[in-house]
Amino acid sequence: MPEVLAYATDDKSCQFHKTTITRREPGATEVFFEVKYAGICHSDIHTAREEWGPVTFPLVPGHELAGIVTQVGSEVTKFAVGDKVGVGCFVDSCGECEFCQQGQEQFCTSTEKPVVMTYASTGRDGLPTAGGYSQGITVEQDYVCRIPDEIPFEAAAPLLCAGITTYSPLKRWGAGPGKKVAVVGMGGLGHMGVQIAAAMGAEVSVISQTMSKEADGKKFGAMHYYATSEEGTLDKLRGTFDMVLSTISADYDVDALLGTLKVGGALVNVGAPEKPVDVAVFSLIVGNKIFAGSNIGGIAETQEMLDFCAEHGIAPQVEIIGGEDITEAYDKVVASKVRYRYVIDTSTF
Amino acid sequence: MPEVLAYATDDKSCQFHKTTITRREPGATEVFFEVKYAGICHSDIHTAREEWGPVTFPLVPGHELAGIVTQVGSEVTKFAVGDKVGVGCFVDSCGECEFCQQGQEQFCTSTEKPVVMTYASTGRDGLPTAGGYSQGITVEQDYVCRIPDEIPFEAAAPLLCAGITTYSPLKRWGAGPGKKVAVVGMGGLGHMGVQIAAAMGAEVSVISQTMSKEADGKKFGAMHYYATSEEGTLDKLRGTFDMVLSTISADYDVDALLGTLKVGGALVNVGAPEKPVDVAVFSLIVGNKIFAGSNIGGIAETQEMLDFCAEHGIAPQVEIIGGEDITEAYDKVVASKVRYRYVIDTSTF
Repeated sequence: MPEVLAYATDDKSCQFHKTTITRREPGATEVFFEVKYAGICHSDIHTAREEWGPVTFPLVPGHELAGIVTQVGSEVTKFAVGDKVGVGCFVDSCGECEFCQQGQEQFCTSTEKPVVMTYASTGRDGLPTAGGYSQGITVEQDYVCRIPDEIPFEAAAPLLCAGITTYSPLKRWGAGPGKKVAVVGMGGLGHMGVQIAAAMGAEVSVISQTMSKEADGKKFGAMHYYATSEEGTLDKLRGTFDMVLSTISADYDVDALLGTLKVGGALVNVGAPEKPVDVAVFSLIVGNKIFAGSNIGGIAETQEMLDFCAEHGIAPQVEIIGGEDITEAYDKVVASKVRYRYVIDTSTF
Repeated sequence: MPEVLAYATDDKSCQFHKTTITRREPGATEVFFEVKYAGICHSDIHTAREEWGPVTFPLVPGHELAGIVTQVGSEVTKFAVGDKVGVGCFVDSCGECEFCQQGQEQFCTSTEKPVVMTYASTGRDGLPTAGGYSQGITVEQDYVCRIPDEIPFEAAAPLLCAGITTYSPLKRWGAGPGKKVAVVGMGGLGHMGVQIAAAMGAEVSVISQTMSKEADGKKFGAMHYYATSEEGTLDKLRGTFDMVLSTISADYDVDALLGTLKVGGALVNVGAPEKPVDVAVFSLIVGNKIFAGSNIGGIAETQEMLDFCAEHGIAPQVEIIGGEDITEAYDKVVASKVRYRYVIDTSTF
């Protein structure tokens, strides 16, 4: 049984400390890979702080993992030792239900073999799963993605969540040539959304609280940058966008953002405000508008996204940190001080 | 200038009385048609009671008009005297903007030649428009639909609003074979939605407050009928529907209805609660769900809907009333006492 170094928190105070965890020997169709880098996603923080409900401690978060295969089971056909691979938010599902069959494994409806999240979940062995803040992990081959050679490990990691979370809705809702897309919020998700939407051919705008990241936004491919701190910004944008991708988890004025959509346009949420938001149904009816949500993506689509990012030279902008920095990094993420994603270098463990 | 009998209200108390109004001589591309029947839509009541803002009185409501052409302008090519025709919610638009070009004239964005609603709007002549509670109307030929021979006038009238209001979103959101569609509320809109969704091939459910209209619902084509007054109804329906069409204007529990959707499903509102509704964004994200609105339909789609209803033998269930009954009918509509649409016989004027 491989033992690996990891960083865990013992309670919701999120004081991370080095520890050792045991991974299972890869089964016949499983691979073990050394995790080189792991991204810190805002949802790691929500989960570890128990803001989304109770979890089992000690907890090793992390669902943006990139590394290199060092061991494969006897029946593994998809990967070989030495391959660059990554894993995102989930590591197993039933494989048979309607949604698994459609390649939307994240929505697996099985009660017998439900989806297994990368951490804070219960694995098929009945044990709590542990995530990417570790030096290695054993995963069923069908839930592993291949990282194209063009993408360095540290850039690949955040794509496994932030990348697919923005790619999937942009694709579903038609971002592309001739379309105007606004990305609301320019954090870990937003700065990926801007790059992906621009690479898809859309005319991209950023709607942020302030103009402080304007230069970055334009570097990422935005043609326009707007600040809601300037009065009347959303009013001036009435009827402008085919799609608005909201990455923020703060409360916001839904009706004002719906107002910036063209007829038939979609305001798609990948960030989730904690409290319910108010929606005037008239705001939807008057222009056949859409208020929607989107939750990561399936394995095939995640692979497609990785290949798309490789082809278009898209990468997250990351700040690399060591294991000892995780505790502080959590506070900085919450305070929006990261530019734009913390990625943990597991060689520092 | 043709003079016609009509029923008007002088203020928002909605005491209707007989009057005479003047219609313009049809211009070169206009037709004049005798209105035989006009439906009473709940939005007539909202408008006339000034619940949606101030209107100019006296007011002749009515945007569900069916009748027979008696006069055509010199350049009219689409219609001839004797043709069965109908008009819905609007009678003009610019014809040139993006949305007019797409056949979504209801969303015309022109400020110079904006959309002209059938009543309570300002016509191209600068005068207030008057609607269908009248014995005749002059309309530009491009805003007139042809009523198929199979559909009697009294059944055609409500199709021009209630029919297209439900047909358009059912089509857009994919109601059809293999799809499960729920219609919430079984009033004027709902009873059309059930028939149309069933004719499209969907497996239709009704979600109503009580079981009182179950027999009707099944007659209209619903396979299942549920009452929210029975505890746990929506819980039991979790993850069931591809689409939910909400026709109600009362407040409702959006998250509970979103819960009845399958992954990727759409809750589409054609009824509009007065106050903003609460939506937990998580309810949308966890299943890639959609909360949307839909507003009538364009002229070409309205014609398509009429042809579809003729082909499938779909008709509203109407109660025919005289001009003297309009005042009382308004109260009955609000009290949900109509089964399912009042239609005014203008020969009673």
